[in-house]
Amino acid sequence: MPFAFQSIVVVGAGAVGSYYGAMLARAGHRVTLIGRAPHVAAIQQRGLQLHKGGKVESIRLGASTELGAVRDADLVLFCVKSTDTEGVGRDIAPHVRADALLLSLQNGVDNAATLARLVRGTVVPTVVYVATAMPESGAVQHNGRGELVIGPLDAAQANDAALQQRLQAVVALFASADVPVKISPDVMAELWSKLLLNCAYNAISGLAQLPYGVMATVPDVVDLQRAVVREVVAVANADGVKLDLDASLQTMERLAATMPTQHSSTAQDMARGKRSEIDHLNGTVARRGAALGVATPANQALYALVKLVEAGRRSTT
Amino acid sequence: MPFAFQSIVVVGAGAVGSYYGAMLARAGHRVTLIGRAPHVAAIQQRGLQLHKGGKVESIRLGASTELGAVRDADLVLFCVKSTDTEGVGRDIAPHVRADALLLSLQNGVDNAATLARLVRGTVVPTVVYVATAMPESGAVQHNGRGELVIGPLDAAQANDAALQQRLQAVVALFASADVPVKISPDVMAELWSKLLLNCAYNAISGLAQLPYGVMATVPDVVDLQRAVVREVVAVANADGVKLDLDASLQTMERLAATMPTQHSSTAQDMARGKRSEIDHLNGTVARRGAALGVATPANQALYALVKLVEAGRRSTT
Repeated sequence: MPFAFQSIVVVGAGAVGSYYGAMLARAGHRVTLIGRAPHVAAIQQRGLQLHKGGKVESIRLGASTELGAVRDADLVLFCVKSTDTEGVGRDIAPHVRADALLLSLQNGVDNAATLARLVRGTVVPTVVYVATAMPESGAVQHNGRGELVIGPLDAAQANDAALQQRLQAVVALFASADVPVKISPDVMAELWSKLLLNCAYNAISGLAQLPYGVMATVPDVVDLQRAVVREVVAVANADGVKLDLDASLQTMERLAATMPTQHSSTAQDMARGKRSEIDHLNGTVARRGAALGVATPANQALYALVKLVEAGRRSTT
Repeated sequence: MPFAFQSIVVVGAGAVGSYYGAMLARAGHRVTLIGRAPHVAAIQQRGLQLHKGGKVESIRLGASTELGAVRDADLVLFCVKSTDTEGVGRDIAPHVRADALLLSLQNGVDNAATLARLVRGTVVPTVVYVATAMPESGAVQHNGRGELVIGPLDAAQANDAALQQRLQAVVALFASADVPVKISPDVMAELWSKLLLNCAYNAISGLAQLPYGVMATVPDVVDLQRAVVREVVAVANADGVKLDLDASLQTMERLAATMPTQHSSTAQDMARGKRSEIDHLNGTVARRGAALGVATPANQALYALVKLVEAGRRSTT
């Protein structure tokens, strides 16, 4: 292997971060999770409990509540919610090594660029296809899939031969831990494709507090979702990211059939009174659309309504 | 008076219908209210209790639960919710006299035309500016204003000299009961102006279950309301109804300041699990826009979301 990683730090050890940290640690790599106090305490006491394939394994790895623990890392898995990218990015910036590689394992299309503005290391967008959950502090549950897609953030990265070697090293690292990683020349298109689904489902499921299957029974709602997808594709294309409209519409409509009982993460956040990721979903589309001269009325409407619910909660609590 | 009304029947004796019926009966006119059984029984026992200006008056008038009671009427005040126009219109049709005049005291811009398609009499659109409530069965409370605006439904009515005389008789009738009635050559523009406010406030207040004052604190929500108003004005103009955009936007934005604690009727319907009038608010704008080739994405989004909440209630109860 021409290049190896000596110290891997997961920033934001929620379900996704804990899962990939556990997989790497289990394969013998040196991993530290940075997370909330109860999770860290539980891990320090008895290791991280990895529930996978019907079995539970106790994984020994480092755990800390201090963002400064990122200072040793030559590879950072950045796994915070989009709403925390700016704040956490700023806080880790003084500690991140200039030669560190940071993978942004996050939804939304703006996180990697935001993080790259704040830290000295090299930030690579990463699309995550995994279903995980945290049944309790100190434990992570794998429910399905697990593959990652990485690729260059921009043309400069695409033309950086040294970076291409490091991405190959990432593939090798994760391969040693049974995690498939694909290098895509168009990782941003994959992120936009994921964003598009979130834009079409998350806010609507949240506002009505209903699962995808019920949404699919109301023709006007499906029309609204199609309008959302058309706008996202138009903004992506104007932004230089090629998305196919017909394929996007089909993928969007299929999701309700494959996950009829699913409530979106936005719906779960709204139900719990937590701040949602809406700024990085329909909000991103509205902002990019405005900057690029693409009309996004459906995304703007959904964005405004979720913001209103969040503002109402603040005004009444 | 060249023309007088001998028998006035109120179809749909909710708060609005009961108020105008009471005012006319109190002035000595023969009035029958058609309404729900508890309201009718209470009126038959002890008269209709009119709470107005700090006093309570007991008004004697006819009351019935039977739609057939409309058969005597030469003047009908049609006061049902927009969602019931089609059904009740069909049910009263066999009983309505061919020479009857029907005033549609309803929100929305399609009720008068719908009713005119169903009954033989002459239907005149009426804009209602009154704040009323029903504190209990057998009682109606006047909270403010009370004036009506009537006018021709279409060019044929506008050119009907006999109808103009009857409209003058309506003015005289209500004047005898201290109810100001204005004849407008452009009553449809007044109805659209009222619709525009309902489209900008009702669904949003309902989806977030928040009052107008909170809506006004969220800039993206005000932008959404402006988008709604622009669409309604464009549809009205395409429909031959002249509305001024700047004046409409100003009126819309002022409403939140004058009624900061108000929850829309749609919000109240949604909170109670009742079917809302959304089909006749943003739904009307979406349908007319589609027919006239005017894009209405903001109204469509709000319409779809309210329909989803209503569908979800059916699917879970």
